[in-house]
Amino acid sequence: SSSSDLIRATLFPGDGIGPEIASSVKEIFNAADVPIEWEEHFVGTEVDPRTQSFVTWESLESVRRNKVGLKGPMATPIGKGHRSLNLTLRKELNLFANVRPCYSLPGYKTRYDDVNLITIRENTEGEYSGLEHQVVRGVVESLKIITRQASLRVAEYAFYYAKAHGRGRVSAIHKANIMQKTDGLFLKCCREVAEKYPEITYEEVVIDNCCMMLVKNPALFDVLVMPNLYGDIISDLCAGLIGGLGLTPSLNIGEGGIALAEAVHGSAPDIAGKNLANPTALLLSGVSMLRHLELHDKADMIQDAVLKTIAEGKYRTADLGGSSKTSEFTKAIIGHL
Amino acid sequence: SSSSDLIRATLFPGDGIGPEIASSVKEIFNAADVPIEWEEHFVGTEVDPRTQSFVTWESLESVRRNKVGLKGPMATPIGKGHRSLNLTLRKELNLFANVRPCYSLPGYKTRYDDVNLITIRENTEGEYSGLEHQVVRGVVESLKIITRQASLRVAEYAFYYAKAHGRGRVSAIHKANIMQKTDGLFLKCCREVAEKYPEITYEEVVIDNCCMMLVKNPALFDVLVMPNLYGDIISDLCAGLIGGLGLTPSLNIGEGGIALAEAVHGSAPDIAGKNLANPTALLLSGVSMLRHLELHDKADMIQDAVLKTIAEGKYRTADLGGSSKTSEFTKAIIGHL
Ligand SMILES: CC(C)[C@H](C(=O)O)[C@@H](O)C(=O)O
Ligand SMILES: CC(C)[C@H](C(=O)O)[C@@H](O)C(=O)O
Repeated sequence: SSSSDLIRATLFPGDGIGPEIASSVKEIFNAADVPIEWEEHFVGTEVDPRTQSFVTWESLESVRRNKVGLKGPMATPIGKGHRSLNLTLRKELNLFANVRPCYSLPGYKTRYDDVNLITIRENTEGEYSGLEHQVVRGVVESLKIITRQASLRVAEYAFYYAKAHGRGRVSAIHKANIMQKTDGLFLKCCREVAEKYPEITYEEVVIDNCCMMLVKNPALFDVLVMPNLYGDIISDLCAGLIGGLGLTPSLNIGEGGIALAEAVHGSAPDIAGKNLANPTALLLSGVSMLRHLELHDKADMIQDAVLKTIAEGKYRTADLGGSSKTSEFTKAIIGHL
Repeated sequence: SSSSDLIRATLFPGDGIGPEIASSVKEIFNAADVPIEWEEHFVGTEVDPRTQSFVTWESLESVRRNKVGLKGPMATPIGKGHRSLNLTLRKELNLFANVRPCYSLPGYKTRYDDVNLITIRENTEGEYSGLEHQVVRGVVESLKIITRQASLRVAEYAFYYAKAHGRGRVSAIHKANIMQKTDGLFLKCCREVAEKYPEITYEEVVIDNCCMMLVKNPALFDVLVMPNLYGDIISDLCAGLIGGLGLTPSLNIGEGGIALAEAVHGSAPDIAGKNLANPTALLLSGVSMLRHLELHDKADMIQDAVLKTIAEGKYRTADLGGSSKTSEFTKAIIGHL
């Protein structure tokens, strides 16, 4: 295909194992003839005053222009006077929803074989306001902020997503029995949106009870939507059910049609550069990106190849109990395309 | 034993299934010759102005006098102008720590057979401040409050408990990477206390990662200590690992040596009065109360009988997949004393 047919997408390889797993994705996308041209951006080596963080202004511009991107792990360098890299991206690109499909991988055994759910996390406010202060010595406060605008926006995305993916139930997760005003507003917004989707069952589940139900019987859930901190907690819990963050894709949805897919695991500096990293989370995040672009054939093709390779079990990286190198695992996937 | 040898303890049967399971506890304690004289107090039928809730002033006085009590489930009646029953007890009695031992029950199969941990939850502040307000239409705030006093108090209890029970590790659960000041203060207090217990390993685990680790491998944990909301979430998650709230005891520790043991499950109005309820959580809470009173022989005797009855599997209530009545299960336990 000529370069004019290609979709330009921003790629943040990230740091630590990021560049290796990003290479694996590029190789596999290439082999699958995915019509994407990557625009690579690296984390800066000093604070960019325009972003107040190591994230460069140019890289943000690239995502804004392309409206689609894929991001590897970024460890925030320790020090003062700059913001976390991940939080900078969320704030600057207004990435209001974090979507994580979470399903049991055939052939990769955990204590659960019946997980098939989607967590949708509000990604911009709540407990992440950054507003904290000391009232007097020994007494500190944090502000949790919930707005109608952000709650409606994520609720609307959750129902839109449920409908688009043929999912029949949305559960709003909350603690409105304690935080009646903040979580109460979140629920009110979910209820308003739910009324526009009579074909989708809507329920509300208190977060403590939700966690208990998830570990007892995750098959009870379908699409879950929740404020920021609960989403942080529950999406990691769900990842744990199927094997961990190394296996779970995530997609951030932003204002103006932006979608930034992201591997949410760490940058694993201890194994960086050793050809040992597992590219699955980044690959499946790439698949989520392809679905967002409605490139479903390519998405299916790559997802099937990844799942087949893991199910077969012949080539698995160390984190999955195997002894394959990143490059061997990558080749095996390409062999299954 | 003459009545002067008896320890007076307050008993709140609670509502719904509360009275039935409390009867079962009384019967079993009686059969085991536990030297306790119960002082029973019921939830009031109207708001007591001195407590601003349906909890009566007399019942609070009873716990303050006896310093020890056992509490069944209490559903907060719907309506305005009064406080939640459970929260009233926590506030009025200054119940600063909620302690939940959580271990796999031999013979009762779940997806986990290797759970043996204790969650210790700060029980008075954090996200439960009740301070919320609307800033402008569509924008609401909740205040999370962390104090040095309450954090030190619960941390001290956690390390004291770990040492007293021969446990070698305390994990402080937090989200200080986001809430640097509030959760940061909590961690600072834990570190201060940890220094006084060099024989106990101290670690800090971010809550999202903690939940992932718990569902993957709960055996990694021993004693967990955390702020209020994280404790609410994680203690229910852990209960789910071993079968649910119907099986997990809890003990609230208050100022001035008060200990109020509590079954934290609901009052199950649908099965109330039908001789179907499972008294296990209240019984094991009673056992926690006995240990607090250093009546270890009685505690062991009752705990062994409960566990044996469940392990045998011949008499199990419906929630555990059996068809026994509460009274049959109770008799079976007495048979094992
Ligand atoms: C690294 C941390 C700030 C981040 C969060 O809390 O959102 C992470 O846990 C995540 O889920 O992406
Ligand atoms: C009923 C509710 C207010 C309570 C809490 O949130 O503390 C409950 O979940 C608990 O854990 O005792």
